[in-house]
Amino acid sequence: MNFQQVTFPYTGPYLLVRTNQGRFIIDFDNKQLVWSQSVKENAANEDWNKHSRHLAYTLSNNLFVTTNDGKTIQVTNEPEGIVCGQSVHRNEFGIEKGTFWSPSGKLLAFYRMDETMVTDYPQVNTATRIATLEPQKYPMAGMTSHKVTVGIFNPASGTTIYLQAGDPTDRYFTNISWTPDEKKIFVIELNRDQNHAEIVRYDAATGIREDLVYEERHDKYVEPQHPLEFLPWDNKTCVYQSRKDGYNHLYLLNTATNEMKQLTHGEWEVQELIGFNSSAKEILILSTETSPLQSNVFAVETKTGATHLLGYEGGTHQVNLCSNGKYLIDSYVSHSIPHNIDVLSSNHKRQKPVNLFAAENPYKDYAMPEISVGTLKAADGMTDLYYRLVKPLNFNPNKKYPAIIYVYGGPHAQMIKDRMNYGISGWDIYMAQEGYVMLTVDSRGSANRGLAFENVIFRQLGVEEMKDQMKGVDFLRELGFVDMNRLGIHGWSYGGFMTTNLMLTHNDVFKVAVAGGPVIDWSYYEVMYGERYMDTPQQNPDGYKNADLKQKAGRLKGRLDIVIGGNDPTCVPQHSISFLRSCIDAGTHPDFFVYPGDGHNMRGLDRVHLYEHVTRYFMEHLN
Amino acid sequence: MNFQQVTFPYTGPYLLVRTNQGRFIIDFDNKQLVWSQSVKENAANEDWNKHSRHLAYTLSNNLFVTTNDGKTIQVTNEPEGIVCGQSVHRNEFGIEKGTFWSPSGKLLAFYRMDETMVTDYPQVNTATRIATLEPQKYPMAGMTSHKVTVGIFNPASGTTIYLQAGDPTDRYFTNISWTPDEKKIFVIELNRDQNHAEIVRYDAATGIREDLVYEERHDKYVEPQHPLEFLPWDNKTCVYQSRKDGYNHLYLLNTATNEMKQLTHGEWEVQELIGFNSSAKEILILSTETSPLQSNVFAVETKTGATHLLGYEGGTHQVNLCSNGKYLIDSYVSHSIPHNIDVLSSNHKRQKPVNLFAAENPYKDYAMPEISVGTLKAADGMTDLYYRLVKPLNFNPNKKYPAIIYVYGGPHAQMIKDRMNYGISGWDIYMAQEGYVMLTVDSRGSANRGLAFENVIFRQLGVEEMKDQMKGVDFLRELGFVDMNRLGIHGWSYGGFMTTNLMLTHNDVFKVAVAGGPVIDWSYYEVMYGERYMDTPQQNPDGYKNADLKQKAGRLKGRLDIVIGGNDPTCVPQHSISFLRSCIDAGTHPDFFVYPGDGHNMRGLDRVHLYEHVTRYFMEHLN
Repeated sequence: MNFQQVTFPYTGPYLLVRTNQGRFIIDFDNKQLVWSQSVKENAANEDWNKHSRHLAYTLSNNLFVTTNDGKTIQVTNEPEGIVCGQSVHRNEFGIEKGTFWSPSGKLLAFYRMDETMVTDYPQVNTATRIATLEPQKYPMAGMTSHKVTVGIFNPASGTTIYLQAGDPTDRYFTNISWTPDEKKIFVIELNRDQNHAEIVRYDAATGIREDLVYEERHDKYVEPQHPLEFLPWDNKTCVYQSRKDGYNHLYLLNTATNEMKQLTHGEWEVQELIGFNSSAKEILILSTETSPLQSNVFAVETKTGATHLLGYEGGTHQVNLCSNGKYLIDSYVSHSIPHNIDVLSSNHKRQKPVNLFAAENPYKDYAMPEISVGTLKAADGMTDLYYRLVKPLNFNPNKKYPAIIYVYGGPHAQMIKDRMNYGISGWDIYMAQEGYVMLTVDSRGSANRGLAFENVIFRQLGVEEMKDQMKGVDFLRELGFVDMNRLGIHGWSYGGFMTTNLMLTHNDVFKVAVAGGPVIDWSYYEVMYGERYMDTPQQNPDGYKNADLKQKAGRLKGRLDIVIGGNDPTCVPQHSISFLRSCIDAGTHPDFFVYPGDGHNMRGLDRVHLYEHVTRYFMEHLN
Repeated sequence: MNFQQVTFPYTGPYLLVRTNQGRFIIDFDNKQLVWSQSVKENAANEDWNKHSRHLAYTLSNNLFVTTNDGKTIQVTNEPEGIVCGQSVHRNEFGIEKGTFWSPSGKLLAFYRMDETMVTDYPQVNTATRIATLEPQKYPMAGMTSHKVTVGIFNPASGTTIYLQAGDPTDRYFTNISWTPDEKKIFVIELNRDQNHAEIVRYDAATGIREDLVYEERHDKYVEPQHPLEFLPWDNKTCVYQSRKDGYNHLYLLNTATNEMKQLTHGEWEVQELIGFNSSAKEILILSTETSPLQSNVFAVETKTGATHLLGYEGGTHQVNLCSNGKYLIDSYVSHSIPHNIDVLSSNHKRQKPVNLFAAENPYKDYAMPEISVGTLKAADGMTDLYYRLVKPLNFNPNKKYPAIIYVYGGPHAQMIKDRMNYGISGWDIYMAQEGYVMLTVDSRGSANRGLAFENVIFRQLGVEEMKDQMKGVDFLRELGFVDMNRLGIHGWSYGGFMTTNLMLTHNDVFKVAVAGGPVIDWSYYEVMYGERYMDTPQQNPDGYKNADLKQKAGRLKGRLDIVIGGNDPTCVPQHSISFLRSCIDAGTHPDFFVYPGDGHNMRGLDRVHLYEHVTRYFMEHLN
């Protein structure tokens, strides 16, 4: 293969290949390597721009750029404790990365996070010759948090400027976006209280704060999660997403006048902005307009806000839009569709889905229990909650069966979806095969049901969610075939908090519980997620005390197994360890297991072991 | 009360009082405070000499002296990582403290330990607002160890010299003692291999190494545990203790000629040198001469080595000798004596014990099971091992009972003694009341049976001890009333190692095990204790591998509960945590519990919780 440099922009049928050596652009027709760029060993957080072919990456805590002509530039040179080019604010506010190329890839916005003032949580690695400390910067609710600034690096000049945002103490800088002309940057800024968001415009050349474009306040919290996205056919207008009318909807922001106009309406949520159909001037989205259990593709007219369903009307869809915006790859599942992949036109007037793939039912050879979904009334007496019920295999209505509730219950998650078997896990199926009734209820607080449904949990995590889960218990009782003396509960993370809380609060209802990676005391949880829902421990002492499960340690009557990852960086081991201490002091007897070296969830073979462990526990104690 | 200084030495009927303010000497007759000395808050390791009335103590890692006239002198001024005036070598070799006043209290010998080169074990305190690191210097077998030197401080001159012992790397400096004239110091020095001990004499004024007084070598290990003690009536002759003839015996060392003469003989062990009867020129000791299960008081004639029993011939004695050597307070227990206290003359020819106290049987109102002691043959076919058997309450020989073996099995400990109920724990009694047969066997390796009995474990910890414990299993089988399908085992520390090892090695014999604070891998244990019995991992890789219970994690069949103190500084959490990892990887399912903040043993209320926990486990799984 000949190595030959060719002129960009791309003209040929080129293929980009990424190997562990680097990136290679290959000219298919002429069988030529037209361009290559090496990557450093240990490089992380790679962000490659296809227009400029500049590559941003991090080595340890600093940011580097390799330009399209192979020159490597160290963008930042910060000491340990200051992290550049990586995700900040613990991945809240929709933040998933720390570098943001301008549209043409000529300028690089990046995060710089000063964590030197944040307390270390002492994680311990026991797999070394002698156990070693692996300190983790972890800002706990009410404690000193990190400080974030936004830099802009210009590879052509080698210079960096920082946005002149003022003192970054107790502020969140989220959802960075560029204007199409690359001259301006928008940042959605939030106060530590998370009840006041501002869209702020900065000059990208100087970093000067030019304008407060828009403000949003809420008594409870505002949670911006989506950067502005400019309409490809109108470089003055961008799409903003907000839940200010109670549901996540699209708004059009005129950046010349700062006018904000709501585009979509209704008691449903926009879930994802997929992209744009420029020829039709439509926005492609995923939304719950059809059903809160579904995610469907819609084209939204920017003139009217009218929505048009694309593709199959049921199920839960994930889509990829091709670069010209004309076609979608629509990958979807539903309770009756294992996995289909269709190609769709993004023009809703020319609906002719072409099926590329239709999976066989992977459960077809299994003895499957009956799985049903329905609604029951929440504890408020008004709201419909979705439940998912699995009856034991070979169900006999005259028998009494033990039941296990699988619970999550917190924000940003929904257990019941129009997916294969309504999103049930293999474990639920197994337990139903073994003679257990399995129930899950998506209580108030969970996702895709609107803001009011979610923010009822504000400053009182666990309270309303538990009431709703107890409605699930009532439902089980009314079924008539559940042995109410053999009721179990299981959940992970927020679901571990719910599991432990329900077991201790309703200690005459539940006999056996397995709580994984539970939050025990929200003051041990991080600033960003925790304070959004609970404010700080100083602001909300009663709320924190009421949600502190250590206070209820003495109420344990049945069997409670606490299971954690030994190095959980999300819900740090202090939660469960301090809970054990409280139980010991109170004279109660929980069980405990730890997966050394694991994080917030068990993966791979450890997950197999985990579910053997969980199953053994229920079979031993719920029989 | 008038404050008036009086002249020392003491003349009146004075009383020394120690309050949290300091020390006070009070003249009873004249109702006067004759002397006082304040103590610093946070002072630790206090060592007060009654002759000079100088006080040595430590603040943090440094050594201080407050003189009898109230002057405070900082003796050492070392940075963190260098510890002065405290016990060294992790309390092995009989070392319990770090300061050693000369007989008159004019000079102070002290340990200085440089730990800067020792790796920190990262202990974590989860009881703080956010968990905090509490690093612990922990030299693991085969790794770099600390370096110890011995200083001598002169309060009169304020000067300190150090013994010129040469490079302290990989050496142990043990059993510091002064000559009566305070001009010389003896140190028993040991190489890291612990197979070569030297008694070395230093000049106390200059620190110059004057003489190698005596050497002792052994193929396996030498373990000096007792400082030289000079005969009060002969300031050239001191008592040395050695197991070189196979049992711990007294030797007389002529320090003028370096001649060493064995004084006591026999297949029994000197356990403690109590003191001296100067008028009779006799040495008072505790020994096992009567029985390996007993500790009796004997007077030893220094001329002949003849021994004369003092006081009650049975039981286990602890004694205090009055300062003039004429009388003993003899506190003793036996299988039939709950607790007696007698006053004895130290003159064996004038035996008229006066009983001061005789405790009532504290178990008199309890339903007591039958407890018996006997011997069985060790796995070598020759050695007698003592066992202790407890039959269930209301024993019926026609029934079959579950049985639990309580095991320790390691050196320096003996479970079966001629104490109340033969030293059994309240838990054994409780379990016997609940219908369990309880057995303990002091296998080879355990204490008070001589060197060969103990050092059979050398380089192969667990191997011979397990064979002997399996003889205990044979014994249970032969009893005829034990249900051999319901066999449990329980032990702590070395006994936790034995418990885990037996459970994994003989996985078809034991059904349930509770292992507390177990050693899992001797390479995670400390240098001093671990290398004595195992050499280093580099020297004895096969021995370490064979004793590494992680290698056997896949053999777990029954129920094994591992219980640890969350901050165990002796058997660090890495042992059990890494074992869990091995079990997870091997697909086996141990149970686990941790007592946060606790060390190598649970104390106080935590111990109550622990034994509830242990009892629940056996009752749940051994039934």
